[in-house]
Amino acid sequence: MRLATRKNGAPDGDLVVVSQDGQRCLPATKVAPNLLTAIERWEEIVSALGYLSAELEAGGGELLDPESLLAPLPRTWQWLDGSAFHTHGELMQVAFNSAPTDNSRPLMYQGLSDRFYAATDPVPFPDEGLGIDFEGEFGVIVDAVPMGVTADEAAKYIRLVVQINDWSLRTIAPIEMQTGFGWVQAKPACSVAPFAVTLDELGADWRDGRFCGQLQVEWNGRGFGLVCGDEMAFSFPELIAHAARTRDLVAGTMIGSGTVSNREYAQRGSACISEVRAIEMIANGAPQTSFMAFGDTVSMTGLSSDGSTPFGTIRQTVIKAGS
Amino acid sequence: MRLATRKNGAPDGDLVVVSQDGQRCLPATKVAPNLLTAIERWEEIVSALGYLSAELEAGGGELLDPESLLAPLPRTWQWLDGSAFHTHGELMQVAFNSAPTDNSRPLMYQGLSDRFYAATDPVPFPDEGLGIDFEGEFGVIVDAVPMGVTADEAAKYIRLVVQINDWSLRTIAPIEMQTGFGWVQAKPACSVAPFAVTLDELGADWRDGRFCGQLQVEWNGRGFGLVCGDEMAFSFPELIAHAARTRDLVAGTMIGSGTVSNREYAQRGSACISEVRAIEMIANGAPQTSFMAFGDTVSMTGLSSDGSTPFGTIRQTVIKAGS
Repeated sequence: MRLATRKNGAPDGDLVVVSQDGQRCLPATKVAPNLLTAIERWEEIVSALGYLSAELEAGGGELLDPESLLAPLPRTWQWLDGSAFHTHGELMQVAFNSAPTDNSRPLMYQGLSDRFYAATDPVPFPDEGLGIDFEGEFGVIVDAVPMGVTADEAAKYIRLVVQINDWSLRTIAPIEMQTGFGWVQAKPACSVAPFAVTLDELGADWRDGRFCGQLQVEWNGRGFGLVCGDEMAFSFPELIAHAARTRDLVAGTMIGSGTVSNREYAQRGSACISEVRAIEMIANGAPQTSFMAFGDTVSMTGLSSDGSTPFGTIRQTVIKAGS
Repeated sequence: MRLATRKNGAPDGDLVVVSQDGQRCLPATKVAPNLLTAIERWEEIVSALGYLSAELEAGGGELLDPESLLAPLPRTWQWLDGSAFHTHGELMQVAFNSAPTDNSRPLMYQGLSDRFYAATDPVPFPDEGLGIDFEGEFGVIVDAVPMGVTADEAAKYIRLVVQINDWSLRTIAPIEMQTGFGWVQAKPACSVAPFAVTLDELGADWRDGRFCGQLQVEWNGRGFGLVCGDEMAFSFPELIAHAARTRDLVAGTMIGSGTVSNREYAQRGSACISEVRAIEMIANGAPQTSFMAFGDTVSMTGLSSDGSTPFGTIRQTVIKAGS
């Protein structure tokens, strides 16, 4: 099942169910007004959403206008982003000239969750000189999770899988990291691909608590990466257990994988510019690739192994704030 | 004006206006259902809240049961905590054996905002061995703030001032700091004193963008600190401008001062245990004071210079999660 959120002038939008081809939809506001409420009441409403999905696959519904959509969760109470791909971590240590981190426990920070950009929103930044970078990743949305949950138990709380662009400002990031306090200025609002999907929608590409499909990344229309989600060093259930060690997780918590990255980056490319700069630093002693400029575009599409695109596509332009 | 939130079985509770002596209240749900909505609609509703406040001072209203209250904002979309007292930072570097940080820019992390404990809630933690500590601080709640706001402009967005206990787990904190990602496990939900107050309620104790009153801290009924808010190295407007450099701040964002701490700690005491342990390390080479045990209590009361207690009192017991 695929779910999306349609603009209605209010922050949380209207819940819609989307057909498997991403072309049609049915309003689901009679089942739950918005996706956050749907997550809070999942057990009681999931079958009603399933009926709408079946109606769509039987040919019902209306044409879906991609421009009418918000992010699946336009806002939520909690966003915790992991960094579960070790290749990404190793390359970022080169990029930031920072010390190696302990790989035995997940890395995770708490990010801005009051706003997620829609897949087609222009994304404003105050200054081109801040090192504007994208980070392609996958994430999960969970039901309420009790403090102290084990990774084995955590899997059952996953309700939906999403695809995310975790916008990052690279000239600020290492300064904030050195404080130990994590990122505020270096991590503005993220963008989320239009469709949030249930695990069954991903078929065999969901295995070992990971989305093992690919993520295709294009920068200004040119191929930048075709990376694969299977190299997560920690599964989503392990990330959930990490997050819930000392807190109950509120229903609607979104947890990210961190930038998708592969050991075979020479073949696969990357899902962020900073990695490419690190690879250039390793090869040539200095980075050659610049960060994004105003007017640049980035697109990101998750791919199942059958070639389908369960999450739809993020396609955005970077603009100057206030323009 | 003092505002509080009364339990109604729903997460956001009911808005009430509270008398200046903290003894009586009037329901304000006809003005705004809850405090988060009140902040979102502040300009249009503040005069109606003022009428209720005047009615209370004229002797109206009903008796306020402190146990009936939630935190003023039981949840909000964003919680950003600064660390604006340099004495605290310097002592924490001793406690954690960490490198000095750059004092020229504010320190700030994004914390859990989906839940704030009420002032009288027991506070559960999974394990006594995690180094359970309190951190007494002040904070502000702001209206929507545009990206790029200056500190001069930021002052006008402050709607309310609050008093906070930022619960911290000290055995995890330095491990998470070393990653540069900031705290997730080391910073569970905070507690907030019962009353959120407008600036005029603080009189001359609100100056230079700081609450310059004191915070009285007791641990298990014994005096632990009587610290003063005037030594903030960055004012609240400066913290707001820091937070808003690359993001719009959503209405209802809460921004904290970090642990109140003074250079004259030998006379004033402290607002967290970790500082006392650092002072012992400096004096004796090793800490003597243990962190909190299950069953321990902490109380915190902000004091105006006239001896009044604008925020009410936090008085809590630490318990084992699941007990």
